Amino acid sequence: MQKIRKKSTTALIEGDTASIKRAQHYASVHRKDFEETLSEFLRIPSISAQTNHSNDIRRGANYVKKMLVTAGLHNVIVNDPASIASDGSSAGGSASKTKQSSGQKSQKNKIAMRTKGVIQGHPIVTGEYWVGSDRPTVLIYGHYDVQPVDPIGLWKTDPFEPVIKNNRIYARGASDDKGQLSIHIKALESILRREKTLPVNVKVLIEGEEEISSPSLLPYIKQNKNWLRSDMVLISDTEMAGQGQPAITYSLRGIVYLEVEITTGSRDVHSGIYGGAALNASEILMKALTMLKDMQTNRIHIADFYRDVKPISGVEKREMRDLSRNEPLFKKELGLKYFGYEKPGGKNIADKGKYLFLERTTAMPSLEISGFTAGYTGLGAKTIVPSTASAKIGIRLLSDQHPKHINTCLRRQLRANLEKLVPGGLSNITVRFKDLGLGSPVCVNRNSSYMQAGLSALTAEYGCKAVLLRSGGSIPIVADFVKILGAEPILMGFGHKQDAVHSPNESFSLEDFHKGILTSIRYLYSLAGK
Amino acid sequence: MQKIRKKSTTALIEGDTASIKRAQHYASVHRKDFEETLSEFLRIPSISAQTNHSNDIRRGANYVKKMLVTAGLHNVIVNDPASIASDGSSAGGSASKTKQSSGQKSQKNKIAMRTKGVIQGHPIVTGEYWVGSDRPTVLIYGHYDVQPVDPIGLWKTDPFEPVIKNNRIYARGASDDKGQLSIHIKALESILRREKTLPVNVKVLIEGEEEISSPSLLPYIKQNKNWLRSDMVLISDTEMAGQGQPAITYSLRGIVYLEVEITTGSRDVHSGIYGGAALNASEILMKALTMLKDMQTNRIHIADFYRDVKPISGVEKREMRDLSRNEPLFKKELGLKYFGYEKPGGKNIADKGKYLFLERTTAMPSLEISGFTAGYTGLGAKTIVPSTASAKIGIRLLSDQHPKHINTCLRRQLRANLEKLVPGGLSNITVRFKDLGLGSPVCVNRNSSYMQAGLSALTAEYGCKAVLLRSGGSIPIVADFVKILGAEPILMGFGHKQDAVHSPNESFSLEDFHKGILTSIRYLYSLAGK
Repeated sequence: MQKIRKKSTTALIEGDTASIKRAQHYASVHRKDFEETLSEFLRIPSISAQTNHSNDIRRGANYVKKMLVTAGLHNVIVNDPASIASDGSSAGGSASKTKQSSGQKSQKNKIAMRTKGVIQGHPIVTGEYWVGSDRPTVLIYGHYDVQPVDPIGLWKTDPFEPVIKNNRIYARGASDDKGQLSIHIKALESILRREKTLPVNVKVLIEGEEEISSPSLLPYIKQNKNWLRSDMVLISDTEMAGQGQPAITYSLRGIVYLEVEITTGSRDVHSGIYGGAALNASEILMKALTMLKDMQTNRIHIADFYRDVKPISGVEKREMRDLSRNEPLFKKELGLKYFGYEKPGGKNIADKGKYLFLERTTAMPSLEISGFTAGYTGLGAKTIVPSTASAKIGIRLLSDQHPKHINTCLRRQLRANLEKLVPGGLSNITVRFKDLGLGSPVCVNRNSSYMQAGLSALTAEYGCKAVLLRSGGSIPIVADFVKILGAEPILMGFGHKQDAVHSPNESFSLEDFHKGILTSIRYLYSLAGK
Repeated sequence: MQKIRKKSTTALIEGDTASIKRAQHYASVHRKDFEETLSEFLRIPSISAQTNHSNDIRRGANYVKKMLVTAGLHNVIVNDPASIASDGSSAGGSASKTKQSSGQKSQKNKIAMRTKGVIQGHPIVTGEYWVGSDRPTVLIYGHYDVQPVDPIGLWKTDPFEPVIKNNRIYARGASDDKGQLSIHIKALESILRREKTLPVNVKVLIEGEEEISSPSLLPYIKQNKNWLRSDMVLISDTEMAGQGQPAITYSLRGIVYLEVEITTGSRDVHSGIYGGAALNASEILMKALTMLKDMQTNRIHIADFYRDVKPISGVEKREMRDLSRNEPLFKKELGLKYFGYEKPGGKNIADKGKYLFLERTTAMPSLEISGFTAGYTGLGAKTIVPSTASAKIGIRLLSDQHPKHINTCLRRQLRANLEKLVPGGLSNITVRFKDLGLGSPVCVNRNSSYMQAGLSALTAEYGCKAVLLRSGGSIPIVADFVKILGAEPILMGFGHKQDAVHSPNESFSLEDFHKGILTSIRYLYSLAGK
């Protein structure tokens, strides 16, 4: 890990306790203001996957800029591909400021270099606050883009008109990630308004492509690695361990998201003429997909797939068993009597109960068909044999699986399955693949001082011992923060399964929103001596 | 079979040869006019499955009325649900005319009875021409509705702006069924314009719901069975045996078209949180569907399914082998190297070559998944586990299978498959069925005098011996014509596989259109003495 500063061993610095108190008091009296800012942020339908929302993406970026400026950060910039391309000088913090803030002689040339690149895609919003090279540098990362809203019919209220009910705020992005990223911005605002300075150096990086696998962010980080270099990166885009049970996530699954389309013959044909003889693209692709896994054990049938999966330790297994008390709640939330791997009576079908919910969803890889379409799907009947079918396949990886390797294995296995199923093999059909996401899994040091300080801050604010968690989700950029910036990721999540992220009626607990702000204030001060 | 007239044994009546010649001459000099009428008919997007085309359906019905009036038929009526409901007197031929034309005393009361019913759905167009009770009565049936046009992107020209190229007319409905039904209307027009009378009594019945399984037609026929009673029903909605090779179809497959939707849990969920544990509706339904048949032999795995399938005779089998010479052409047309049941080298995978293309598509039942949708199918990635999936399943039946019985068997088998696949069984998910079509298979007498006269007329006009065919398609109403009207169906098809019916770029051969008209003229005269 590349450090930009000598490590200190001091704990909370003299006077910090009073500063924490004052900043937290500011946050307490501004609860309503903070909620209103969040509501306004949530009104922007910044859906990154759908090109018709590109103006909303821009509005989302500008709103983040406004929040960072309000908080009191410096050099707040909406890094816009067009403006970078035209004047070559506006990515990240401004060149002059960055030179000063990073305190490094060679910085100016590096900045010149990084601003040469043209960022493709959605704006990246950055800001900073520099207090001194004797303090650690914390990079705060989040994303202002959100998932699509379909199926829209299942939303009880407008996904972009926030509603507060039972102290929860309902809207797309409430938890993932507008609500959670706002926690740290509001913590910074509370400290800066009261103390006129911060206990640590801070860089903020809020992107607009997380839900589409961050295609622009990696090039941006590579180009701006000197400006972004930090001791740690603070991210809130994960979950707590339960209601009132704080947690830090130390493991994320990686992701491979692939679209596959097959074409059998030149057109859909009449089932009354060809039914029983023509190749049915829908049936062939379905069959090829169902061959990819055992639906009940979730064992994935892709050659070479498990090569790099690291087994979890006995300690981790015991921790997960302790945390499995919430399973009935998860099922109730989903409207399920049994999970996919269970059988009536609650016993596991396979593995004789060897793996529980948490192990399956966070410590094992998974494969899900996230979408499938073939033939006629409109109203009424159309009597055809479909000639094309396409599917979206999402695989969650466990460390140390490599997304590129798994992508290759998946393509190879699908081709092998199709070769087996189709008369005449692959020469008789067309297969097209489209990569829609690649992200590495991450597993960070459970015992670092940043991690321990985070657990302490959470424990202090929640009054309940914070625990360590594995997450089943993916934040593809986290592996790059480690690899390129040498920063230790601290995934301090304030979400819950009940938040229904990526689903209709997403929501976020306002209690956790406000407790999160108090925690973030305490955490930033506790880092000052690290 | 219920006859309304004493059968005569005379062949072509004195003077008929000259009449045929004159009417055929009229048709020959009006070729361009007839093509223009067909083009105008094809411009109307009368898609019955899509409610946003209900005005076009009305326009289609009115256009048929115009053609029948132009031909010189009497009592031409667009039987409109609204007008029948309001004045109770306009279904079928008018009451007074029908009384005269049928020559039956009790007709008036029967008419009164039938017009009491309110027809649900799209208009049915009727017309008639009565020459005398000593002549046979021919019912001409066709449909003016067409299939949807998707995938619209694969059309080379606008589906509703007909284009003539290489003596073929390209448009949705060109062959199925606007082009084919026009053949008989133009034959009637040619005879009536020249001869001022017809050789037989004619009733015409053109409906607008054939592509959605004719829900209104059966009640209409039941209510109007006295007016509709005929010796035979002439239908052109099937295929020839090959280019220049005329044929009459004596067997039609029946149909069961079912939509199934399953719901697992209350909402789509995040694959990063639940991937590996939640029930994936897409995967479950796919698996349940792939269990319904062996993709390579096409053997259908539904309990009790084959109970009523009649084996075909040795004669029929030999005829089909003779007709199988076109298989390479069909494959080329579809852009396929091998059919679903073949393997490289052209040998059948299963059955050791026991069944060829024609047997599989016309003399065996088939099951096709005509549509499937689940999860996110838009642009880009959405990392979810889908909680709903739905499919459209089309089964083609062979006589003597009963559609209601097969529908019950299919539902039962799907439930059984799901019960097996889903943890906790059917109590853990929701299954919804929607019937989208039921039609009985038909197999008519190959040796009747109407059949033999039809084969003779085709042979005479095409200069090539007409053959007997089985069709793999379904015209659900044909079984009802037999059952309710006692009419013998003569399926004189002028279509070809190359017509691409139900597919993009549907077309119809203008050579067959015009030869069809000449054949129809000859056939109507040859029936006069039957």
